[in-house]
Amino acid sequence: MPVYKAPVEDTLFLLNDVFNIERYNNLPGFADATPDVVEAVLGEGARLCEEVLQPLNRSGDLEGCKRNPDGSVTTPKGFKQAYEAYAGGGWIGLAMDPEYGGQGLPYTLGAVMNEYASAANMAFAMYPGLTMGAIAALYVHGSDEQKRAYLPKMIEGTWSGTMNLTEPHCGTDLGLIKAKAVPNGDGSYAITGTKIFISAGEQDITENIIHLVLARIEGAPAGVKGISLFVVPRNAIGEDGSIGANNHVSCGSIEHKMGIHANSTCVMNYDGAKGWLIGEENRGLNAMFVMMNEARLGVAIQGLSQSEVAYQNAVAYAKDRLQGRSLTGAKEPAKAADPIIVHPDVRRTLMSIKAFNEAARAFVIWNALKSDIAHRSGDAAERQAADDQLGLMTPVLKGVLTDIGFDNAVKAQQMYGGHGYIAESGMEQFVRDARIAMIYEGANGVQAMDLIGRKLGRDGGRAIMAFFNEVGGFLKENGEDEALKPLLAPLQASLGHLQQATMWFMNNALAKPDNAGAGANDFMHLLGLVSLGYMWARMAKVAQDKLKAGANGATERMNTKLATARFFMERSLPETAAHLARITAGADSTMALTAEQF
Amino acid sequence: MPVYKAPVEDTLFLLNDVFNIERYNNLPGFADATPDVVEAVLGEGARLCEEVLQPLNRSGDLEGCKRNPDGSVTTPKGFKQAYEAYAGGGWIGLAMDPEYGGQGLPYTLGAVMNEYASAANMAFAMYPGLTMGAIAALYVHGSDEQKRAYLPKMIEGTWSGTMNLTEPHCGTDLGLIKAKAVPNGDGSYAITGTKIFISAGEQDITENIIHLVLARIEGAPAGVKGISLFVVPRNAIGEDGSIGANNHVSCGSIEHKMGIHANSTCVMNYDGAKGWLIGEENRGLNAMFVMMNEARLGVAIQGLSQSEVAYQNAVAYAKDRLQGRSLTGAKEPAKAADPIIVHPDVRRTLMSIKAFNEAARAFVIWNALKSDIAHRSGDAAERQAADDQLGLMTPVLKGVLTDIGFDNAVKAQQMYGGHGYIAESGMEQFVRDARIAMIYEGANGVQAMDLIGRKLGRDGGRAIMAFFNEVGGFLKENGEDEALKPLLAPLQASLGHLQQATMWFMNNALAKPDNAGAGANDFMHLLGLVSLGYMWARMAKVAQDKLKAGANGATERMNTKLATARFFMERSLPETAAHLARITAGADSTMALTAEQF
Repeated sequence: MPVYKAPVEDTLFLLNDVFNIERYNNLPGFADATPDVVEAVLGEGARLCEEVLQPLNRSGDLEGCKRNPDGSVTTPKGFKQAYEAYAGGGWIGLAMDPEYGGQGLPYTLGAVMNEYASAANMAFAMYPGLTMGAIAALYVHGSDEQKRAYLPKMIEGTWSGTMNLTEPHCGTDLGLIKAKAVPNGDGSYAITGTKIFISAGEQDITENIIHLVLARIEGAPAGVKGISLFVVPRNAIGEDGSIGANNHVSCGSIEHKMGIHANSTCVMNYDGAKGWLIGEENRGLNAMFVMMNEARLGVAIQGLSQSEVAYQNAVAYAKDRLQGRSLTGAKEPAKAADPIIVHPDVRRTLMSIKAFNEAARAFVIWNALKSDIAHRSGDAAERQAADDQLGLMTPVLKGVLTDIGFDNAVKAQQMYGGHGYIAESGMEQFVRDARIAMIYEGANGVQAMDLIGRKLGRDGGRAIMAFFNEVGGFLKENGEDEALKPLLAPLQASLGHLQQATMWFMNNALAKPDNAGAGANDFMHLLGLVSLGYMWARMAKVAQDKLKAGANGATERMNTKLATARFFMERSLPETAAHLARITAGADSTMALTAEQF
Repeated sequence: MPVYKAPVEDTLFLLNDVFNIERYNNLPGFADATPDVVEAVLGEGARLCEEVLQPLNRSGDLEGCKRNPDGSVTTPKGFKQAYEAYAGGGWIGLAMDPEYGGQGLPYTLGAVMNEYASAANMAFAMYPGLTMGAIAALYVHGSDEQKRAYLPKMIEGTWSGTMNLTEPHCGTDLGLIKAKAVPNGDGSYAITGTKIFISAGEQDITENIIHLVLARIEGAPAGVKGISLFVVPRNAIGEDGSIGANNHVSCGSIEHKMGIHANSTCVMNYDGAKGWLIGEENRGLNAMFVMMNEARLGVAIQGLSQSEVAYQNAVAYAKDRLQGRSLTGAKEPAKAADPIIVHPDVRRTLMSIKAFNEAARAFVIWNALKSDIAHRSGDAAERQAADDQLGLMTPVLKGVLTDIGFDNAVKAQQMYGGHGYIAESGMEQFVRDARIAMIYEGANGVQAMDLIGRKLGRDGGRAIMAFFNEVGGFLKENGEDEALKPLLAPLQASLGHLQQATMWFMNNALAKPDNAGAGANDFMHLLGLVSLGYMWARMAKVAQDKLKAGANGATERMNTKLATARFFMERSLPETAAHLARITAGADSTMALTAEQF
């Protein structure tokens, strides 16, 4: 049976030593997040994930969700109780406004908990995750009345939330949405249409489900500028908050899919359901996009989470499975064979996953902090800079962490040989679950286009220039450190590739947008690698400093960090040159064929 | 529903124009394989795969195999009839000795048919595939009596064959095998032991199953030098070939696994089953290894096959799905949106799969021809050279084609967005099925070690030197051709990387074997990329020549070849520099941690 242990120690290293969150204690919520509180909170969260969520991961996959003839959906055994424990522990409202029952702690801690929960049970974590997304949208765009009506119940876990965007004929291209909203004359609208791929669209966990639905008000302009956002409770809600009759909202079917079996993916039918506008008419996409950064960061975290849990199991197996002998002589001569962790190709695999996971965790926390700053700082310039970075890095986080996270789940499965292909090992579930993260919340190709088409050039390239300055400044400042030099030289080279690629787009993509499109995916991964390399540089510097200062019992841990940093620089960064070469090849060969020639 | 069309035209281009198989008509069987015959044979095979096997692919995945309480196994509906059609068409015996009912045609044609059948229905193709493997082992190592007893029935499809190597505690490390064989005194042995992961171990398709089983004769030396190979029919066989009682062979359970659901993966129990030695005592591994090259090439073909069928479906979807507009202005303004094939990132994805598939197909055929030459040529030097290449390239074919084949199935699935995650699309099945090819018949890490540890240095590096000479010679001969130059320059650079990597191992791995182990996977992929690049160079030259000569109605097809060749050179070959960088980084950072530090 698969195992999972939340990496609390590594998280604390990042929060306390690398990003030093204490220096943000002027931000609302951060003053309460003292090191002791953070450690206690994460310890509590880790326990919940390890003891309650993880044991339901495989059973949830096997049982799946079932739609009953009456349209209700039965979730796997234990999910309802786990959700109650999750909500009861205050995790849904961790970073939410105390006015509505939240704890007001930093969003960054919520991102950490999201990693743990997703690693323990990704299909489960989506239920509270989607509720949190709906809460955020209502919080930013809802009226006071709407907030009072919905948020407390959602935060306490009595009601859940969902997002209804996709229709059968449109996913990426939301301008094609057909669902319609007709004013009822009393301020409400009658919503009619079919939505597909609605995660947690129906379930037996909460007493009501608050659907956020994109629809077109009769007579609205065509395309994305005619889409509005509505709140549509599954069941009518009385003045006193009591639950009434079904609001003409029903689950028509649930999908049979590759993974996340324990999360119900629903076709939702709205047949004149009563809904209320959230925010302004025809500004529904805008309302959705505000929460997109966090939602996409959430999916990025899923990529990391599956990589982490798959890694932990691969390590355990590699230490246990006896097969063959070390190339340098038997390491455990008393046994029939050596454990496979002695083999260089096994280590290469494990090191590459480890080196990614730790940098990806840093990359997530670095950007989650930017989200906190963007939302909570009193300094406009600081807010702007944080928002710039978050805008630039969100597609990179989503695209790169889910691509590599999936690859790593595959690599970890490979360590098991034939046993990894058998369902019982749990390894193939990580692969199947991780796969969806590359697709939903904007497929990774769309992330790459968002990066190159919208984020890179925005405000004269201010965000990428700030990134160049930050990384370049770090390299300059530490480039003379003899111990760090061998780590920083490869990063310097990769930063150069990134700068050349950026320049190439400036010179070649404006007149020929296909050059941008054909290089978008490579650019996203190039920026991702440099970002992860920068995270390693910062972690290595801290490790180096701690070792110099005596390390306080953490010598082995800090040496491990330095060795892993070196592996990343030597083995992952060489890829940046290949990305640059593909980018500068341009679009000609990519676009050479007619559709018929494929 | 997924579709599949066997790429007969592309195969004929390779057989006739690129590899010119007519010049081998001095080899046994080749004289019969005139262009007309080949075209007819492949056309017939294509029809069987498209019309009989492919329609059973998704239903087979959904139904899976069921083990009944009596130990029998029920395969999915239609599989028995399909097997009868396959055997009845002469496909099992296509390349087998006519003395036993085979057709004696080139093995190369069998490899082509294997691609088509695996693309149409991989789980199905394993049933005849394993039978063909068992036939090959019996043919080479069996006594005349054994051959007469088993081969005709297996070739005609009345009986099937399997391979029993793996045990619960040993997969890669066969020296640990425990299954034992005790002489019965009458020339037969009583075989006792448990084997796992036995594909097609039990089924309801054929009237008997001929198991080939590795076991240790009582008193045999420990390790791999004490293993013998036995033929163990499931049911006793009378003198007249009639089927008798069960031979103490039973299927204890079948595995629940990630994919290839329609192939029964069995735990096989031998409880004093009567078996007969194949070949010499204690030389069982040797007998197995003889057929390993072909078996591994067969798995390599599975990688290509899933890449091909996934690609075909992705192309169809990309031409059909309307979403967004071209970056260069609407291509189908009358429709609500353009088909997604207009988007550069979609094309990049499709082109990368196409460029791989066509080169991989060439790579397979090139090496399948070497297998025919190695087995059938009358010229000892020619046989030796062919065998050298096949030995060198077998791990590359297996490791690289299955790694990239799987990646491509994932990429093709990605083209479907959320719809690709839904089982109904069939795309996720290709991913799940393709995954096993990276694992079985020697996990890809083992292939890399076989390449670097055994094949590269064998006979003073004769095989790799021959490859360098062949590719170098081609580049020299065609380097002045103005049209080919832009294609050959990147190949020249990549060949240089391969030569540097080879040299680096010579200088750094003998004294420090971990340097070989840590670079093995990169070297395998580096050699794979150069090989695929060489295939593209040869195809491009033929395309160029045909265009010069008038192309005979094939102008568009030849232009497509040239454009795809260019894409491969520009976009896939840059990876060779990254492989070289990782290889020359050596083992230090890979091996730096203790097991506890992971």
